[in-house]
Amino acid sequence: MNADLVIENVLLPDGTQGSVAISSGVIQSIGHDKPSAAAVYDAKGALIAPGLVDGHVHLDKTLLGLPFIPHIRGDTVAERIEAEKHIRRTLEVPVETRGGLLIEKLSAQGTVALRSHVDIDTEIGLKGLEAELTLKERYHHLMDIQIVAFPQSGILRDPGTDDLLNAAIEAGADLVGGLDPAGIDGDVSRHLDVVFNIAERHGVGVDLHLHDGGALGAFELRQIAERTLSLGLTGKVAVSHAFCLGELDDVDFGRTAALLAKADIAIMTTAPGPVSMPPVKPLRSEGVRVFCGSDNIRDAWSPFGNGDLLERAGTVCDRQDYRSDEDLALAFSLVTEMSSQVMGREGGLVVGAPADFVLLPVGSIAEAVAERPRQRTVFKRGINVTPGAGE
Amino acid sequence: MNADLVIENVLLPDGTQGSVAISSGVIQSIGHDKPSAAAVYDAKGALIAPGLVDGHVHLDKTLLGLPFIPHIRGDTVAERIEAEKHIRRTLEVPVETRGGLLIEKLSAQGTVALRSHVDIDTEIGLKGLEAELTLKERYHHLMDIQIVAFPQSGILRDPGTDDLLNAAIEAGADLVGGLDPAGIDGDVSRHLDVVFNIAERHGVGVDLHLHDGGALGAFELRQIAERTLSLGLTGKVAVSHAFCLGELDDVDFGRTAALLAKADIAIMTTAPGPVSMPPVKPLRSEGVRVFCGSDNIRDAWSPFGNGDLLERAGTVCDRQDYRSDEDLALAFSLVTEMSSQVMGREGGLVVGAPADFVLLPVGSIAEAVAERPRQRTVFKRGINVTPGAGE
Repeated sequence: MNADLVIENVLLPDGTQGSVAISSGVIQSIGHDKPSAAAVYDAKGALIAPGLVDGHVHLDKTLLGLPFIPHIRGDTVAERIEAEKHIRRTLEVPVETRGGLLIEKLSAQGTVALRSHVDIDTEIGLKGLEAELTLKERYHHLMDIQIVAFPQSGILRDPGTDDLLNAAIEAGADLVGGLDPAGIDGDVSRHLDVVFNIAERHGVGVDLHLHDGGALGAFELRQIAERTLSLGLTGKVAVSHAFCLGELDDVDFGRTAALLAKADIAIMTTAPGPVSMPPVKPLRSEGVRVFCGSDNIRDAWSPFGNGDLLERAGTVCDRQDYRSDEDLALAFSLVTEMSSQVMGREGGLVVGAPADFVLLPVGSIAEAVAERPRQRTVFKRGINVTPGAGE
Repeated sequence: MNADLVIENVLLPDGTQGSVAISSGVIQSIGHDKPSAAAVYDAKGALIAPGLVDGHVHLDKTLLGLPFIPHIRGDTVAERIEAEKHIRRTLEVPVETRGGLLIEKLSAQGTVALRSHVDIDTEIGLKGLEAELTLKERYHHLMDIQIVAFPQSGILRDPGTDDLLNAAIEAGADLVGGLDPAGIDGDVSRHLDVVFNIAERHGVGVDLHLHDGGALGAFELRQIAERTLSLGLTGKVAVSHAFCLGELDDVDFGRTAALLAKADIAIMTTAPGPVSMPPVKPLRSEGVRVFCGSDNIRDAWSPFGNGDLLERAGTVCDRQDYRSDEDLALAFSLVTEMSSQVMGREGGLVVGAPADFVLLPVGSIAEAVAERPRQRTVFKRGINVTPGAGE
């Protein structure tokens, strides 16, 4: 069978040189035979790595495309929500532009799929969602986009948000979100009632933001797990941040992790610097999937962030003290295989999977994580989408 | 007076546009008047920032210029010392080459001065020092280099090292180092006796590595401060790492910091991810100077590290939860003003100081830290030393 494209002189994951053939945007073969093809690309010995998958971004929040805006202080999550709304009201560059710039930036760095949490509140309504749905279609050739309807201002403290979340799912959001049922809404049960009712009614997944710490956060995690199990949503629920998992004693950690594993709830971490983070290997040992995302990229929440997932894998290594090749590869899996799984994507470097990958001028995945090479040749569904590739 | 060079269209630290005039490698004027000059450089609105100063590197350890070497695990500092020696014995690329590549890499990123800790032990003797003294001379046009004679294998546990440290100072090392008087050498007093006797005898400064944690590390810090005071070495001593300062209760922190301030002992941190770090603002409030360095850059201790001090300032912000422009500028001062002071350098953007600076395409220091722009035009003693500048 003739392939559309063969990529020759590729360093394969097993360390040998080989070829990858692509047909109709899908990997047709990968290995040491060299099928005939309409076109040939010479990888010149570059390592082929699966496309990077960003498990948590906010396309609507980024201030990319605007001059640098000094951060407005906010000591609590509630204060930061207000600071963000203040900035949002004055922005003249629409989400379609800012989010589009972010997608292009992420793609150029090797990201092929992302999950975006879009603000839904009674001030902005579904406008952010509509913009992200436009972006999802416009950038289909670069990025698989999954959208979470995210009640950034809370649900109970911003009455009317529950209806908007329902409407968001009906309008095309892929998952329903939530935010600190205790810390923001002050009522764990009622907050989770709203979120899980929407998930059940529409048959969609859940991805909640949880910043609440220590025993409180752990209690909420167990509540989320109980509901997930009782509603049969096993494998469809994720919790983002969950700093509390890094603060528990062994007993509390063990019983919480066991319940998360039973409900197959995945934990998203950015490997944050100022707070504790979910411990990656202990969670994996208990059977809990961990994945990574960029979160804020130059927005009202943080002036930092560049969306580089190789750098993010390195940050995981820094926080978890990973140095060996094996551990660096584990960190890499959090920004590829694990986040891809959580998004329900077919992925990886296997026959039949979408031809989404990155060619990197390094000798191993560990070196890619340690070195974060700038030169990245990005293929999306078999097309070289690297900026400037078509010139 | 005619200047050698005028840099026009510079964004000055106060946010206005201006010019900088340079004569004989020194800043002759900085501000809004435009002196006549033999040559003119158009900065095109770029921000002028002081040259970056790396307060802690190991020029002899880097594996730059070699293929990626997988990290050899070592769970304790002692095990890692042995792992490093094992690698060191097999290296065929000399320190002059590896360290030279590192200096060039640092310079290209805007670093104009560094303090390097060179291994002194009974196996390697003074060979590393001799190589670094060669580098210091060879790269004089790019980098101010200060060398610490560093007993990486301990002093008491590697008998003969004390004599070698003495010989190292006589051979041209600028400071004497030390390493975990308790954790590595098992005798705080005797270890510090050796280090401080050498400092006193030769009139040189001290920069000790201290990884020992909690109450033990704090005890050692106070011992170091007492000796510093009694020997009149105030302002000449630094302690690198001092993770323990991030682990103390308020009372212990307060009495330790007060003693550090009294002895004017500066604390070097890399803002490490897996362990606690010295809290920057609380230390500064007590009057303790804090500065930053890169530490390991692709060596036997870590496969990570790229020597980018703008990134390092960002890591400080990440660990200390700094987001405001003011806080980002504080972090920037740890890789410029503070490390420069600790090295005893004249520095900063003031008339009479060496014309060591970086032009960055950003609107403020905060943006430089958040964005870490790749484009950096580096001037060392008034010469544009950016790679490719002379072409």
